[in-house]
Amino acid sequence: MRVSYIRSLGTFTLLKVQHNSYRSTINLKAQIRTQAMSNQQMFLWWGSGSCPCWKPMIVLAEKGLWKGLPNKLISFDEEEYRCSDILAINPRGQVPTFKDGELVVNESNAICMYLEEKYSTAENRLLPETPEQRSTVYWKIFEASNVEIKVLDALAYYFYYTKKEDRNDEVIKEKVATAKTELSHWEKDYPALRKYYDTITARPSVQATWPPHWREGPTAENHLAAL
Amino acid sequence: MRVSYIRSLGTFTLLKVQHNSYRSTINLKAQIRTQAMSNQQMFLWWGSGSCPCWKPMIVLAEKGLWKGLPNKLISFDEEEYRCSDILAINPRGQVPTFKDGELVVNESNAICMYLEEKYSTAENRLLPETPEQRSTVYWKIFEASNVEIKVLDALAYYFYYTKKEDRNDEVIKEKVATAKTELSHWEKDYPALRKYYDTITARPSVQATWPPHWREGPTAENHLAAL
Repeated sequence: MRVSYIRSLGTFTLLKVQHNSYRSTINLKAQIRTQAMSNQQMFLWWGSGSCPCWKPMIVLAEKGLWKGLPNKLISFDEEEYRCSDILAINPRGQVPTFKDGELVVNESNAICMYLEEKYSTAENRLLPETPEQRSTVYWKIFEASNVEIKVLDALAYYFYYTKKEDRNDEVIKEKVATAKTELSHWEKDYPALRKYYDTITARPSVQATWPPHWREGPTAENHLAAL
Repeated sequence: MRVSYIRSLGTFTLLKVQHNSYRSTINLKAQIRTQAMSNQQMFLWWGSGSCPCWKPMIVLAEKGLWKGLPNKLISFDEEEYRCSDILAINPRGQVPTFKDGELVVNESNAICMYLEEKYSTAENRLLPETPEQRSTVYWKIFEASNVEIKVLDALAYYFYYTKKEDRNDEVIKEKVATAKTELSHWEKDYPALRKYYDTITARPSVQATWPPHWREGPTAENHLAAL
């Protein structure tokens, strides 16, 4: 290991450490730049009530970057996710679509990872310190796609897209069973899920980014009432 | 920033840096420990020809950790992924299932992330250095689930699970169209995909972990011939 040079950078000191391990090659300059964080070069296209959109919005709020962030709330009903601004940098025509200066990052989880790596301080970091601890978070991030597929896609979207008169009790029964099996995986490992939900939703970051149309009142139907 | 102490740790030096930025809180000790890498405390349950299994196997091989790694090749036909050893630490009964000492990591991408963070050196790191560069890799890791859903699940598994006499030409036509649309997203951004494939498959890590039953000869049917 070799400390090659130490120099002043404003009020901060840049320490460049060179050795053969992985993390030392991360550019420390990038960390220091984040001490003066700005969100004015960012842009987020998002939709109200979309989980994929909400995720990076919460992370932005946790980093103190949500307030004043240039953004556009698009209308799902008018299919504004297919507008030319979005399609130009996200050919799948999806939200969230995110820019930080010239850098485009799409896919909600990738945006969260990027924000965590680029804009964290010791006070607002969301991932734990060690590779061992982080591995469990990564495991749950990827495992959570099962909830999306087996609860949201399978059940909630069935109610959402199927008229009452077209719904089939047998189909619903099967979908409810699939969703319950999925949720049981989480409840077994995390018996205090309800408390976790209450703790998380009380956070200022979650409150500040709460889907605006949910504030206007309950939706016509609780699609997950069967659970 | 404050260098609090420097002390010798075997032939390596441990430099503990304390300041307010994120990365500094990563335990440098963990990096140094990896200089003497061992795989004897690891265990991988895997299946031949499974993409989720192959991913961490390639990463292990890239880190020089595949050779001699305690592992079990399970049989999909005999549903050995539901064996008690696996179910005890992976209630979904899936492969890959991975252990590193007492630490369990499941979900293929999470295993890859863990191995990259824990066992990388400057020579074998797979992720790029800066948050900006890594953000694109993360984007593509999460985006790649579309290939799994729209090409593999939709098309390959239809052929795999549907007897020839039960196949429907209209259904196939629709599934092929979906798969082609998906692949076009990748070909537009990465026109040299074929060259990339050839470069990747030539790597020793890929050759060393090639699904053994694929070496025995071609499978009965090319499920992606329509593409």
